Amino acid sequence: MSTTFIRGFASGTFASMACVYVYNTRVFKTPSSDNRRLDEELKPRILPADHPMLEDVNKLETQRRILKYGIPDRGQEYYIYDNHVLAYDQAKKIPIWVAEHLNAQNVKGSANRKHSKFKPDPSVNGRFNAENDDYFKSGWSRGHMSPAGNHKFNQEAMNASFFLSNVVPQNFENNSGFWNRFEIYCRNLTKKFTDVRVITGPVFLPDLEEDGPAIVKYPVIGKGQVAVPTHLYKVVLAELDGKPIALGAFVVPNKPIGFDKKLTDFIVPLETLEEKTGVEFLPKLNLSNVKPLCQVDSCHLKTKDEFELHIITRQLNRAENLDQLYKAYSKLEKKNLKPDQYMIELFTKKEMELKEKQLLGEREKKEL
Amino acid sequence: MSTTFIRGFASGTFASMACVYVYNTRVFKTPSSDNRRLDEELKPRILPADHPMLEDVNKLETQRRILKYGIPDRGQEYYIYDNHVLAYDQAKKIPIWVAEHLNAQNVKGSANRKHSKFKPDPSVNGRFNAENDDYFKSGWSRGHMSPAGNHKFNQEAMNASFFLSNVVPQNFENNSGFWNRFEIYCRNLTKKFTDVRVITGPVFLPDLEEDGPAIVKYPVIGKGQVAVPTHLYKVVLAELDGKPIALGAFVVPNKPIGFDKKLTDFIVPLETLEEKTGVEFLPKLNLSNVKPLCQVDSCHLKTKDEFELHIITRQLNRAENLDQLYKAYSKLEKKNLKPDQYMIELFTKKEMELKEKQLLGEREKKEL
Repeated sequence: MSTTFIRGFASGTFASMACVYVYNTRVFKTPSSDNRRLDEELKPRILPADHPMLEDVNKLETQRRILKYGIPDRGQEYYIYDNHVLAYDQAKKIPIWVAEHLNAQNVKGSANRKHSKFKPDPSVNGRFNAENDDYFKSGWSRGHMSPAGNHKFNQEAMNASFFLSNVVPQNFENNSGFWNRFEIYCRNLTKKFTDVRVITGPVFLPDLEEDGPAIVKYPVIGKGQVAVPTHLYKVVLAELDGKPIALGAFVVPNKPIGFDKKLTDFIVPLETLEEKTGVEFLPKLNLSNVKPLCQVDSCHLKTKDEFELHIITRQLNRAENLDQLYKAYSKLEKKNLKPDQYMIELFTKKEMELKEKQLLGEREKKEL
Repeated sequence: MSTTFIRGFASGTFASMACVYVYNTRVFKTPSSDNRRLDEELKPRILPADHPMLEDVNKLETQRRILKYGIPDRGQEYYIYDNHVLAYDQAKKIPIWVAEHLNAQNVKGSANRKHSKFKPDPSVNGRFNAENDDYFKSGWSRGHMSPAGNHKFNQEAMNASFFLSNVVPQNFENNSGFWNRFEIYCRNLTKKFTDVRVITGPVFLPDLEEDGPAIVKYPVIGKGQVAVPTHLYKVVLAELDGKPIALGAFVVPNKPIGFDKKLTDFIVPLETLEEKTGVEFLPKLNLSNVKPLCQVDSCHLKTKDEFELHIITRQLNRAENLDQLYKAYSKLEKKNLKPDQYMIELFTKKEMELKEKQLLGEREKKEL
């Protein structure tokens, strides 16, 4: 090898390492729990960018001295799955925030929740995980933060949404009622906007008692003492062709909410939500041209009739035999609802399919 | 420039960048709030170490897609000061853990708390900071987690311990009584051990009501709604000549605690404390040869008399004129306490100093 090559190699190495040094002194590093064993040497870590280099070196010394046995570890900063990203609270055993990106493609498909099971997240250090047992008979449902229905395009993505890292103890009626309608609303935004970004999570707000002190109060459930949030939030950003158009932040109490309430009743300023959660949600978003979501869109949730039609449609879709199909369809009459054209066609198609399936089954039985 | 040099440069750059890639895929990066503006491009971030490279690349894509507007930001992972390191909870506006290293040198010196002032931490994003006003007339004291007295060797280090990032709303009597004695105990360990590492912080534990559900309940104070912890913890590790010898974990309720209680009444298993806080405190510590602190040492806190002597000694030390000196000394008689040799010498020395100071003052007055 020529000395010129070696000089060049050295310069290249030096130049890129210098870049890397500058880059690295500007970011924090957290070793994940999995990495800790690989990470026996205390790695350089950092420090506000406004401090001069020299002081950073002193700080490194200070850190090495004080944190000789490692940096107190709260687990990974965030976890990435096939179709959602979340931060996890190891003390409360629920997520802090769960981020998603919805578009017309990924909310459709054949992935089905009947193939998914709730279970502890294998990425989370076991002792900090919630368990199904914690929820069992607790009086609280396992409420998805990133809903199963947002992962229809991919069964694996849907399965990952059933990890308990994506779940909080949620009031049953809220979960299957208002919150479900809210989730449907977010999915339907993909019909109007090219991209919808949603961040969902729990929040713990104080009761403001008259004249008394403000008190935060929440139950913890199961042996694992999983925290039951007082409220749930969603930050919803709608984009058209890569451009952010409209944003809404909503805080919903974790209790039954009837059809008399509107989504607009739960609007909060993004800043307020950020202060209550301690999270800045979209740090790189320039808000200057972004309008309030409920001004650009109606923020209309399905009415009682619309929602019941939706539920019956889903039951028709999921029916596995003619009994189930007719039972679901008969609810229309009981509830005095009129099927729309889509539903009539769906019913007819499903009826044919299931009759065929039945015939096939009877034939197979005879042949045995 | 020769083509050989250029080839060399390119190879050097490539080789080092490849190393950096491998290194970076094994760590997380969090841009600090201060850095965000410099960090306009979404940087590669990562992923459990047990995943193959290829999947990591997919995850990077997923992350870029979902977190187009940045990673939801909870502030820096931790903050480094001259003599303590802490993690901060932007929602609760109090620290999560505060780590210190004590030795015989740094707990002595002339730094004085009268030069220090409580104030919001300039490193914390303002809207997530506690304010003195939040504490004012709240009924709660500003309780240092890393105590001022652990920074005697350096006034700047002591000043930094008065940032409200190092403070929680603490019961007054607990703060000035039991907790103060606990802090003195930790400092005194440096007489017996070469190094003492202490991690201190707040914890929020549920009330276990009979048959009822477990409920976490705590007040929040001020406009900023600073959270008042139900309990405070300390993890204390004593070392001799670089070797960890003994460890104790303690959880103390945030309320008045009398002289009838012993420190040993508040011992908890380290694992339990870790599960309640969600923090693994000393991830690199090998516990196999580490004994329980209160077996190696007495864990004896000062008795009422010893503690009052200590307080009077401090008042003698801080006296700025003869009036203050005599007033402090007269407390001995009132409380029926006998001064020890150290105190008698201290009193005599201070009396001479202050008499000289008084004479000098009188002379200056005459000359004017």
